[in-house]
Amino acid sequence: MSNHEDSQDFDLRLEQLAGAIERSDAGAIVQLLGETEGDDTALLIDRLEAEERSHLLQLLTPEQAAEVLEHVHYFQGADIIETLPPERAAPMVAELDSDDRADLLKELSKRDSKAILQALAPEQAEETRRFMAYPEGTAGAIMYSEFVSFEATMTVREILEDIQKHREDYIEYGVQYAYVLGPRGALLGVLPVRNLLFARPEQAASEIMIPDPITIEAETPVNDLENIFEQHNFLGLPVVDTDHRLIGIVDRESSTEALQEAATEDLLKFQGLMGKEELRSMPLRVRSRRRLSWLSINIVLNLISASVIAMHTDTLEAVIALAVFLPIISDMSGCSGNQAVAVSMRELSLQLVSPREFGRVFLKESSVGLINGVCLGLLIGAIAWLWKGNAMLGAVVGAALALNTTVAVCVGGLVPLLLKALKQDPALASGPILTTVTDMCGFLLILGLASLALPYLV
Amino acid sequence: MSNHEDSQDFDLRLEQLAGAIERSDAGAIVQLLGETEGDDTALLIDRLEAEERSHLLQLLTPEQAAEVLEHVHYFQGADIIETLPPERAAPMVAELDSDDRADLLKELSKRDSKAILQALAPEQAEETRRFMAYPEGTAGAIMYSEFVSFEATMTVREILEDIQKHREDYIEYGVQYAYVLGPRGALLGVLPVRNLLFARPEQAASEIMIPDPITIEAETPVNDLENIFEQHNFLGLPVVDTDHRLIGIVDRESSTEALQEAATEDLLKFQGLMGKEELRSMPLRVRSRRRLSWLSINIVLNLISASVIAMHTDTLEAVIALAVFLPIISDMSGCSGNQAVAVSMRELSLQLVSPREFGRVFLKESSVGLINGVCLGLLIGAIAWLWKGNAMLGAVVGAALALNTTVAVCVGGLVPLLLKALKQDPALASGPILTTVTDMCGFLLILGLASLALPYLV
Repeated sequence: MSNHEDSQDFDLRLEQLAGAIERSDAGAIVQLLGETEGDDTALLIDRLEAEERSHLLQLLTPEQAAEVLEHVHYFQGADIIETLPPERAAPMVAELDSDDRADLLKELSKRDSKAILQALAPEQAEETRRFMAYPEGTAGAIMYSEFVSFEATMTVREILEDIQKHREDYIEYGVQYAYVLGPRGALLGVLPVRNLLFARPEQAASEIMIPDPITIEAETPVNDLENIFEQHNFLGLPVVDTDHRLIGIVDRESSTEALQEAATEDLLKFQGLMGKEELRSMPLRVRSRRRLSWLSINIVLNLISASVIAMHTDTLEAVIALAVFLPIISDMSGCSGNQAVAVSMRELSLQLVSPREFGRVFLKESSVGLINGVCLGLLIGAIAWLWKGNAMLGAVVGAALALNTTVAVCVGGLVPLLLKALKQDPALASGPILTTVTDMCGFLLILGLASLALPYLV
Repeated sequence: MSNHEDSQDFDLRLEQLAGAIERSDAGAIVQLLGETEGDDTALLIDRLEAEERSHLLQLLTPEQAAEVLEHVHYFQGADIIETLPPERAAPMVAELDSDDRADLLKELSKRDSKAILQALAPEQAEETRRFMAYPEGTAGAIMYSEFVSFEATMTVREILEDIQKHREDYIEYGVQYAYVLGPRGALLGVLPVRNLLFARPEQAASEIMIPDPITIEAETPVNDLENIFEQHNFLGLPVVDTDHRLIGIVDRESSTEALQEAATEDLLKFQGLMGKEELRSMPLRVRSRRRLSWLSINIVLNLISASVIAMHTDTLEAVIALAVFLPIISDMSGCSGNQAVAVSMRELSLQLVSPREFGRVFLKESSVGLINGVCLGLLIGAIAWLWKGNAMLGAVVGAALALNTTVAVCVGGLVPLLLKALKQDPALASGPILTTVTDMCGFLLILGLASLALPYLV
């Protein structure tokens, strides 16, 4: 959609797709989607009416529907699947890759995902339940169970025959590693497919594999995976259970992607969306409700900090000029504190600070806070002085901003560490805690100092 | 550093490393770093004193120093390189991969990077300058020039001999594709190394390659790359110039990583760090200056919106209770608007909205804004009424919040699109623009409405 022609072309295709859905013309739909590139598919689906999206999937075979689901974002897919009866949705979900299937079902309501799981084949349902149970940010949440394995006793000739037979699949799925298994499915080694180039036909898999490979567990944090991938240049890592049986693979791509998702979610949480995906194609009441849930918490926090002002209206009445500086104190302290929050979040995610290093962070932040507080305080103090010609007003406003900036920067640096140490999500809660503390403290400082200096202010 | 024992072990290693640096014992340093895993290297380097870091690199050979640089984050590396004289830094920089070299030099001051470029071999310096010139977010900024190519006339036998000869490098670098070049270096095809498994020794490279492969240009946006990678399961994409000569490779990993970096940078920019990396190990004056540069813009914007209050002090003086609601109006409208900013940023990055769809976004946002505005307005209006027993105060405060929330949500949804359409960075400027507009508008609304209703308020 980067220029006018593209945009006309897109509108035409959207019209054709909507028409084909109306005519229930599955052939035309498949052809249209087949001609559409990558992200344009997601956009086409996004721009259909909710009923059209639902109708579209029902017109296709489960395999075709699954392919559509794999081309849209998982939360878009969940949005459509939710509108289908479970017995229609289940065959489509069954066709997805194991990791995509778990991602999609996790987005659904408990009731919907339960109904679909019950309609799946028992073995697949059990695997999916297990995959869904792994917490976000662990290897289990991003691994897939579709891998190629050979028994240790197979020869290179037998393996090459197998590869020739399934050649199309191997190229389609870009298989780079095969896994060599011993008795009872225990992982013995990794066989980079390229190594077959340098092997003699009569050698056994166990002779040319990389023995005792680095393995991870389903509980391994994604952050640790990135380190292993960076150090060893692997493309995939085998995930094993406590009996050293191979249960899945994590590839480098999904590991990096998971970190990207986490960074984007942090942004959404900071901006007050509580990490829930919102697309403008979702129903109005869903969008409004998701946003209100956060706003209603925030208004309570705002009322708490505003109560500090309400308790000092006599001071304000005496020196009305102070009212001009209340929002400035609140906003500037919030900004200074948020900078420290961002640095702490970044250092935590790069593992350059441990959640228990309060002393170090306090020392590093209090010095920056003091310097920046004094600079900002002098500036705003001078402006207040010049505006009203009252030096004491300048001193009160400037001192309040300087002190509160120092407090805000220290609190901002420490809160993410504290939340992390308490196993809470720093991205979600740091902002509101910071704002409430610094607003209350800031209002107390400026109004408290003003009431002390009242004789010089009026 | 996840438990006490790890932390003791880390402190011991840090002490040993500092000791080895003091004794100028290069052997001990190499051994210590060799025993240290992945991200722990970055942490160790982070916790040294600035002079120790500088001394450390100078004790090592350029190859060893480059390896250290590749194990720390590029902005950490730039921080150390900056402390070295250019003639010492250049040989280390020369040993880096082409993409890492450009990333690191881009972080340096103009003067430092120029001095190091002059000390590099002319050919390498020219390539590095070209790599540094590609803008962030394009293929050029993440491609590397280290690739394996064969002439089209070479036979499979000759290629396999070459591979056997350089086997160590191939495995170390995880080479997956080789590139087949025609006369004058024009790219003819891609040869997945695995394909050699299915070839006869006498076939020519041109017979077993994938001809006319998908290529990109250095200017191709990273967002488009992700689409190609997802659709085709490629691990790398060849970058060609206007004469179809191969100038570099972008791998899937770096493409995803670049998107992750961009998401993290967006968070830093939103939080007022202007996208500049800050680590607490950096000097105090650098940290303070980087943060102040943004705070000083923000304080000016704050003064502009506070001037609206200053012009209405007579109304405030008459109804001092309004002062309590000014920071609430400011903060709540900011929150509501930021939610809309986040949705627009997300839809822009997923390419689910084009920067010119103002009408669609306005329609979608104004409805959410109105609903949430009315909810929040009723709540805050009721509280104001109950607090002061004055229904008109409730009406003024509630109406101001309701109207301003609607404005804030529309502005928040539209500003990122507008900035994107103007080729500006939405992450950097959306927040300040939103806050300034909604503060001014909110203060005008509450104080304007109050002055109209003044007889009923006092």
